[in-house]
Amino acid sequence: MTTEPASLHAHDEGEEGLAFAPRYDAAGLVTCVATDAASGEVLMVAHMNEEALRRTIETGDAWYYSRSRKALWRKGETSGHTQRVVEMRMDCDQDAVWIRVTQAGGACHTGRRSCFYRAVANEAGGAKLVFVDADKTFDPAAVYK
Amino acid sequence: MTTEPASLHAHDEGEEGLAFAPRYDAAGLVTCVATDAASGEVLMVAHMNEEALRRTIETGDAWYYSRSRKALWRKGETSGHTQRVVEMRMDCDQDAVWIRVTQAGGACHTGRRSCFYRAVANEAGGAKLVFVDADKTFDPAAVYK
Repeated sequence: MTTEPASLHAHDEGEEGLAFAPRYDAAGLVTCVATDAASGEVLMVAHMNEEALRRTIETGDAWYYSRSRKALWRKGETSGHTQRVVEMRMDCDQDAVWIRVTQAGGACHTGRRSCFYRAVANEAGGAKLVFVDADKTFDPAAVYK
Repeated sequence: MTTEPASLHAHDEGEEGLAFAPRYDAAGLVTCVATDAASGEVLMVAHMNEEALRRTIETGDAWYYSRSRKALWRKGETSGHTQRVVEMRMDCDQDAVWIRVTQAGGACHTGRRSCFYRAVANEAGGAKLVFVDADKTFDPAAVYK
């Protein structure tokens, strides 16, 4: 006999339980959002596979999986602009990860602190982009050779 | 003759230009991160198709595309927990959107303010989840009937 309510099925376990059970998509990936632990700003959105997640958890450095290069990479391994993880969280259905990080240099390969340096403006002729917080914090040509 | 530098190819246009040109994946979606405009907390990660993006920009309410239900939905249309968009930003390669929102009630269908109510702890036997900010702000059974 069990005292569990009938509603405590597998879905609830994933959402209300404490088992770390990432739900990878068909490509074996979860989405990861990295925010600046100090400012709260969203720095980037990228993907992690099982190995990237494992290495991130074990080392405290952010590791990602590049879909275009089909390769595991440690953030900052070329640029030196590493991300130290202050906290990692999973979302309700465990297919997205949020990491709060201490970002060295800038997160974006264009030289900005964040990849989100353009806002969307709704104008008469349709949506347009507007630069915001778009100052470059480093010279990408000097960093990525 | 053009005065454009040779490096100003299509890739740079997407990253350095001001044309709103979302890059949808094979399923026609971009990833969207919603954060609380007041606290900076990440509320949820979801997806938008072209129609959801258009409606969000035009109405100022967050619209998403549900991959599981294969349907467009306005956040809060069932629960009343709408998201008013304070600012929308695109990332460098325009395949991810960040919206800062004023969230009514809670964003998560489990009753929490945010979907990210569990942190990942690295323990000897492997990763475990730990509840953080997990108090329910509404009763999902009363809201989703």
